[in-house]
Amino acid sequence: MKTLIQNTKILTMTSEQVIENGFIAIENDRIVYVGEQKPENFEADQIIDGKNKAVIPGLVNAHCHIAMTLLRGYADDLPLEEWLFQKVFPIEDKLTCADITCGTSIGLMEMLRTGTTCFADQYFMMDNVARAVEQAGMRANLTRCQMCFDEDVDIQKDKTMQEARAFYQNWHGKADGRIQVTLSPHSVYGCTPRYIEGIVSMAHELGADMQMHLSETAKEVADCQAKYGKSPVQHFHDLGAFDRHAFVAHGVHVSEQDMLLLKNKNVSMVHNPGSNMKLASGVAPIAQYMQNGINVALGTDGACSNNNLNMFEEIQLAALLAKGHFMNATSLKAYEAIQMATVNGATALNLPAVGKIKAGMKADLVMLDLDQPHCYPMHSLISALVYSMNGSDVVMTMVDGTILYQNGEYLTIDAEKVKFEVKQSVARLF
Amino acid sequence: MKTLIQNTKILTMTSEQVIENGFIAIENDRIVYVGEQKPENFEADQIIDGKNKAVIPGLVNAHCHIAMTLLRGYADDLPLEEWLFQKVFPIEDKLTCADITCGTSIGLMEMLRTGTTCFADQYFMMDNVARAVEQAGMRANLTRCQMCFDEDVDIQKDKTMQEARAFYQNWHGKADGRIQVTLSPHSVYGCTPRYIEGIVSMAHELGADMQMHLSETAKEVADCQAKYGKSPVQHFHDLGAFDRHAFVAHGVHVSEQDMLLLKNKNVSMVHNPGSNMKLASGVAPIAQYMQNGINVALGTDGACSNNNLNMFEEIQLAALLAKGHFMNATSLKAYEAIQMATVNGATALNLPAVGKIKAGMKADLVMLDLDQPHCYPMHSLISALVYSMNGSDVVMTMVDGTILYQNGEYLTIDAEKVKFEVKQSVARLF
Repeated sequence: MKTLIQNTKILTMTSEQVIENGFIAIENDRIVYVGEQKPENFEADQIIDGKNKAVIPGLVNAHCHIAMTLLRGYADDLPLEEWLFQKVFPIEDKLTCADITCGTSIGLMEMLRTGTTCFADQYFMMDNVARAVEQAGMRANLTRCQMCFDEDVDIQKDKTMQEARAFYQNWHGKADGRIQVTLSPHSVYGCTPRYIEGIVSMAHELGADMQMHLSETAKEVADCQAKYGKSPVQHFHDLGAFDRHAFVAHGVHVSEQDMLLLKNKNVSMVHNPGSNMKLASGVAPIAQYMQNGINVALGTDGACSNNNLNMFEEIQLAALLAKGHFMNATSLKAYEAIQMATVNGATALNLPAVGKIKAGMKADLVMLDLDQPHCYPMHSLISALVYSMNGSDVVMTMVDGTILYQNGEYLTIDAEKVKFEVKQSVARLF
Repeated sequence: MKTLIQNTKILTMTSEQVIENGFIAIENDRIVYVGEQKPENFEADQIIDGKNKAVIPGLVNAHCHIAMTLLRGYADDLPLEEWLFQKVFPIEDKLTCADITCGTSIGLMEMLRTGTTCFADQYFMMDNVARAVEQAGMRANLTRCQMCFDEDVDIQKDKTMQEARAFYQNWHGKADGRIQVTLSPHSVYGCTPRYIEGIVSMAHELGADMQMHLSETAKEVADCQAKYGKSPVQHFHDLGAFDRHAFVAHGVHVSEQDMLLLKNKNVSMVHNPGSNMKLASGVAPIAQYMQNGINVALGTDGACSNNNLNMFEEIQLAALLAKGHFMNATSLKAYEAIQMATVNGATALNLPAVGKIKAGMKADLVMLDLDQPHCYPMHSLISALVYSMNGSDVVMTMVDGTILYQNGEYLTIDAEKVKFEVKQSVARLF
């Protein structure tokens, strides 16, 4: 299959230079050409005209719990502990495979509608998530998130350990390579040290990457200090969790020493401004991370603490919060905020062929309509993307060269069926 | 003209109770009935079906400079002083009547597209703004913003004083009462004390309300302290500026004493979270204002410091920032954030018949599509409006009972002409 996108603005993310009227040639799952001239000798099966439109790399949502979309708007304006233990966990105990499937599918629709082509997801009953991702044609980094409070657990016989291993073995590299599987101790407060060591040991054995929650709240850090005499970063570090390629979510409460540890181990940090603000967890010091040379990606977290999966909102929040909270108007420039949601996300998820529009890269692309009032005038596409536009401006989303969403149509998802199933699940659960 | 909106969710803003399947009857510019039953003996000329939709009061943007939409995205990631003096003022010096007109019209399109029915605006060449508002059918509180650094100015002969007076006399109460005119000393740093007294005196003479910028940056407060030995709030207060009904924009840097003065004089505060974050001006202590019983409204500020006029983003930012910055997840609940953008805005602008859906009130209404992925599931309409949805979900905007925007069509604005004129203006100005 050969596709040509023509006559369109292009932000390649290889530099801040915008191609004002360019062409992208795609062969199967790969970009084979990008430039200002029409490619020679390229006979397209399909031509997409990009007049009054812009093409950017598909966005990478580097921290999510997609099936939690079923809990969207169910518990607002509460602090994290109360929200999690009194509201979220009791509902999660009741979730069935059917719930996970439709919760995932409605989340995938929202992601595709708003320009996300790849996401990292931590949850349970992950086979259902993986199947939905495979069918939808999305790209994802999935993990069976692990928690264990039992000091004497038999690591070999532990059910969750077995599930995480089986999930890795069944799904890593599947769906034409679109699905990657990682291992994930939920957090320092969600796992015993022995359990974390068990997961790290399995990661070495399988050759798996790692992802986890880290230093999200001040309480988490204080509790870790009290229990283990060290910060969550140091604790994970000392248990070997960063000896594999790893990316961590939140990183709100970190010291200079923590940053050095993360930098030394090449750990990526996933910033979740919307969730952190909503749960009043604090504000991650993004400028400091960047000064320390740490790769910073961006995530929405689950729709129960956001309450949507719209990465354009997250990009804007990141740019505004870095300025407003730390009172520095030059902090996190617009282009840097887009980098977080594209190339940096791909780096975090260990996907070198994702995040830029360049020959040889995966054809994960998003096309946006520029003919809306909020796009007039357009002094700068980069500024518009961050500060003026929104996910609703997306008119086409493509993964691996296949169009998954276009002008209101979900080409791989039965939207009406999914919406019906979501209503059924919610009626039963709540 | 009689219009019936039927079978729709309604958030009236008279309480948090959502009408799940309701009816709104409109006669000319007024709502005559709201309820769960179809109104009896109401023969509608026009019926609007609201299945899978919600109706809320039109949003009130209580601080804007709409013609600055021409400068959208032109100067980003800069501190306020540099942004204003080196970037904004030089362009503003070049603006013509034609620029103001098309800059206003593209802003009106964006407002209508995203659910704003009423706005407060401070700028110059305001006749052009008023004409565009009148033609578009919007509601607005407009003011010829006044600055003067000349200690010896002849108040009677001053050109800007005369413009402000003429604008009041020509436009206050015009456009079927949709246009209100106020007086506005720009700020304590933009006017001499004598000049402010001159404006206050004119306000008393005309019976005009007042609006101004206030305590936006720490520098403004420090400079005012150094020059006058008092805070900007105290300074305006002592010059009599709060003896008329007044609303002030920003209010970021205020003391407890300032709050008491504002409360005593019944001054409304207009919160501009997006602009304040983007320019790193600081974060207004909204919870404290509310604890002090001060009416807090919401504004976008101009599109050059936001960079859009989308009040749904502002509602979400207000709710998230109050939690995230002050680390209190229960601060500014979702319903309170919507109040700021509706009833509180109407109170600030002295419009008692605006901001609620209730018999006798003006028919300023917004209809939203609930059939988008980010609306599934919908545990709470209020939560969805604040945390999940966006201005792009608006499908119909009505002012004074007249539909001004519906399903992509601007019924009172020639959209293609406006977009063309914006491009012409920008090509000449920049």
